Amino acid sequence: MIEQNEKNEVPFDEEYLRQLLIDEKIEEFREYFLALHPYDQAQFYEKVGPDIRGVMYLFLSPREMASIFEAIELDDEEYQPFLNEMNTAYGAEMLTYMYTDDAVDVLNELDKEHRDSYLKIMDSETVEEINELLGYEEYTAGSIMTTEYVSILENSTVRSAMAVLRKEAPNAETIYYVFVVDGDHCLTGVISLRDLIISEEDTLIRDIMNERVVHVKVSDDQEDIAQIFKDYNFLALPVVNDKNELQGIITVDDIIDVMDEEASDDYSKLAGISDVDDIDAGPFKAAKQRLPWLIMLLFLGMITASLMGKFEATLDKVAMLALFIPLISGTSGNSGTQALAVAVRGIATGEINDKSKVKMLLREICTGLITGIVCGLLVVGIVFVWKHTFIIGLLVGAAICCSILVATIAGSFIPLLIHKLGVDPAVASGPFITTLNDVTSILIYLGLATTLLSQIG
Amino acid sequence: MIEQNEKNEVPFDEEYLRQLLIDEKIEEFREYFLALHPYDQAQFYEKVGPDIRGVMYLFLSPREMASIFEAIELDDEEYQPFLNEMNTAYGAEMLTYMYTDDAVDVLNELDKEHRDSYLKIMDSETVEEINELLGYEEYTAGSIMTTEYVSILENSTVRSAMAVLRKEAPNAETIYYVFVVDGDHCLTGVISLRDLIISEEDTLIRDIMNERVVHVKVSDDQEDIAQIFKDYNFLALPVVNDKNELQGIITVDDIIDVMDEEASDDYSKLAGISDVDDIDAGPFKAAKQRLPWLIMLLFLGMITASLMGKFEATLDKVAMLALFIPLISGTSGNSGTQALAVAVRGIATGEINDKSKVKMLLREICTGLITGIVCGLLVVGIVFVWKHTFIIGLLVGAAICCSILVATIAGSFIPLLIHKLGVDPAVASGPFITTLNDVTSILIYLGLATTLLSQIG
Repeated sequence: MIEQNEKNEVPFDEEYLRQLLIDEKIEEFREYFLALHPYDQAQFYEKVGPDIRGVMYLFLSPREMASIFEAIELDDEEYQPFLNEMNTAYGAEMLTYMYTDDAVDVLNELDKEHRDSYLKIMDSETVEEINELLGYEEYTAGSIMTTEYVSILENSTVRSAMAVLRKEAPNAETIYYVFVVDGDHCLTGVISLRDLIISEEDTLIRDIMNERVVHVKVSDDQEDIAQIFKDYNFLALPVVNDKNELQGIITVDDIIDVMDEEASDDYSKLAGISDVDDIDAGPFKAAKQRLPWLIMLLFLGMITASLMGKFEATLDKVAMLALFIPLISGTSGNSGTQALAVAVRGIATGEINDKSKVKMLLREICTGLITGIVCGLLVVGIVFVWKHTFIIGLLVGAAICCSILVATIAGSFIPLLIHKLGVDPAVASGPFITTLNDVTSILIYLGLATTLLSQIG
Repeated sequence: MIEQNEKNEVPFDEEYLRQLLIDEKIEEFREYFLALHPYDQAQFYEKVGPDIRGVMYLFLSPREMASIFEAIELDDEEYQPFLNEMNTAYGAEMLTYMYTDDAVDVLNELDKEHRDSYLKIMDSETVEEINELLGYEEYTAGSIMTTEYVSILENSTVRSAMAVLRKEAPNAETIYYVFVVDGDHCLTGVISLRDLIISEEDTLIRDIMNERVVHVKVSDDQEDIAQIFKDYNFLALPVVNDKNELQGIITVDDIIDVMDEEASDDYSKLAGISDVDDIDAGPFKAAKQRLPWLIMLLFLGMITASLMGKFEATLDKVAMLALFIPLISGTSGNSGTQALAVAVRGIATGEINDKSKVKMLLREICTGLITGIVCGLLVVGIVFVWKHTFIIGLLVGAAICCSILVATIAGSFIPLLIHKLGVDPAVASGPFITTLNDVTSILIYLGLATTLLSQIG
């Protein structure tokens, strides 16, 4: 028994495996290695050097190597070096044995020339399936589905369904759902293995299948599909084309990857980083990823500075005003980001829709008013105690109150607007809203100050 | 066939169902309603009023109501009104039929008095299981596992295993894995239904089971468990106690909920909002959730202002300096948030560990230097073109360059430090880092300015 959950503990003896390969002990290696979970096999495969991997290609069949490649977790463009280590025929055979969706992921990362060299020697049926999947747009059901599902005709019996399942068990990605189709391969129902094993052998599938089968279209967005999995707790979902013909299935493990990707994506956007900015990249790559945002925001900041330039006379007269600029812009930025995050999350989960959005905007206006007034009063008090000036305190307090209100409304309204335009609201990300609120809050503050000073002076 | 994926389209005829209940047509209602997916049943149940629900309690058995309650998605403290509508005996029976983990979720939200009123009349075996689960700490394996799993003894045959599965199919949360135990109920292996259906009926389980069964402990953190699901693509994972006795299982649908929760949690922390700040809450509740952050950051901002006060003389002399304050603090805040997000994500995914953290810090220092120099030079150029002053441009550029470097280092170092202290690094959230970087960047800027002016003047 192994302890998978102990941190940093590898659940297999890496050195032992490595030695077996060096000593060319093929039988001992195969016995130990093939008993491992494919994820652990992949960990070992990625860790050892090309010379050791060279022995692995000799000791393992393309089919065994396929399950390693399915479990491998690489970033884009990193499959090529591994494939270059094998001869093309071995690689092509391995790709044939992989689940189509995983094979497509690998092939997608190769340049056209390399891809074609594999497709030329793979069997034509697989190539056809692969070409079909390669044609679907990224982030759609088509691009994440697999074609290795189990389907039967409506008028089969439970006995023949079980026979099909036994036959398909080694190849199908899931055998826990059987999808029922008519003569035209149109989806008409679904039955779970759970239902099959408790049914009489002579029962017709048609009589026990679930006809209300939830399904998605090849062009549906992967985020919407993830939501269906979350709501309905499915293990797999069938994918059909416009004619309702069954094209493939999406399994729950693919959805877990989608959820991981989307969560990480939203988080990155809120922070203004690119999703590919990962910790393995060198500093130049990281800087290249981050600079576009920083420079864009730098120009926005320059606009702020130039707008402030109009109030230079006011600042020249009362230098104390400058002390509160970071406070006001910071507070407005913070309240804007809070409102933004609530709105983006609400839109993503579908809680905010056409019906509820007016209610949500009204709520945000009230929330902005309440938080604005509380923070504003607090500031009046603090500035009075600290600087013993009521006028400046009132000015700063009023500016904070207005800025929070405006920032909160902007933070909730802008994502709604962007969503209405059909764009992912997460692009109205944190740094952008923050900088926008910088400008408005400072204009409010210095505008108020100038008016007040001209009234007094 | 229904179109689940069309937006806002309800996959059932709500009005028809409602009318059947008003007309008290029990058979028609049951036939239509019970064919729906539990998630859709729950949607209907939540939507109708208490009077209609009153009829539902009469038409549906506690067992049928249990599957509705398992699919219901409510926020904390909202089960009570529904339970109050049923009589206690009906409610208690319903809770008995629910999967233990779901029943515990419901009972956890009730006050002690109500909870006890149900536990008193539920059967003692269920109560014992529930009390055990109630005892586990939140966010641990124990708190999300269910006790409805299928287990068999090592020396059973495939035939008897299939018989157990057929018997347990209606109750177990998943029948796609059978967990193998010895005489002391210690976990010794696992076998999938996939393997069972392709094996000979007389084969001993011991001979075909997978002995390298990945398992977790009751006290393990749910986020670590989610990672195991992501890596290994499991549908269920066994949970054992310190003596290796099988206590329950965690299924993939629970993990999807955990992932959703954790992603939303990290996102909320980066935005400085509370995770319970959801769009259904009224403005007072929302303001109450957001104000602690805003006020805390307001006080931090006041510290910035008071530190700036030390440079009031400098600002008084050259009012133009004030124009660039938002630019400098904004840019430093943005680069800090970028570094923070990369670090928090790296720590969460386990990519950043003790070995790689020095490398990661070095990388961030280099990245900070590169981005700082690029942005600094850019600013020198812009300010020169705009204001025709090389000195101020150089000053602002140098301040931006230093601030970006410091902010990037702080953004990556602080989460590492917090993680080292055993706290979730996401608490070093966006607004906090931003405000901290405000202070340092302005001090750098005004410090440089004062030194420079005293040199010149």
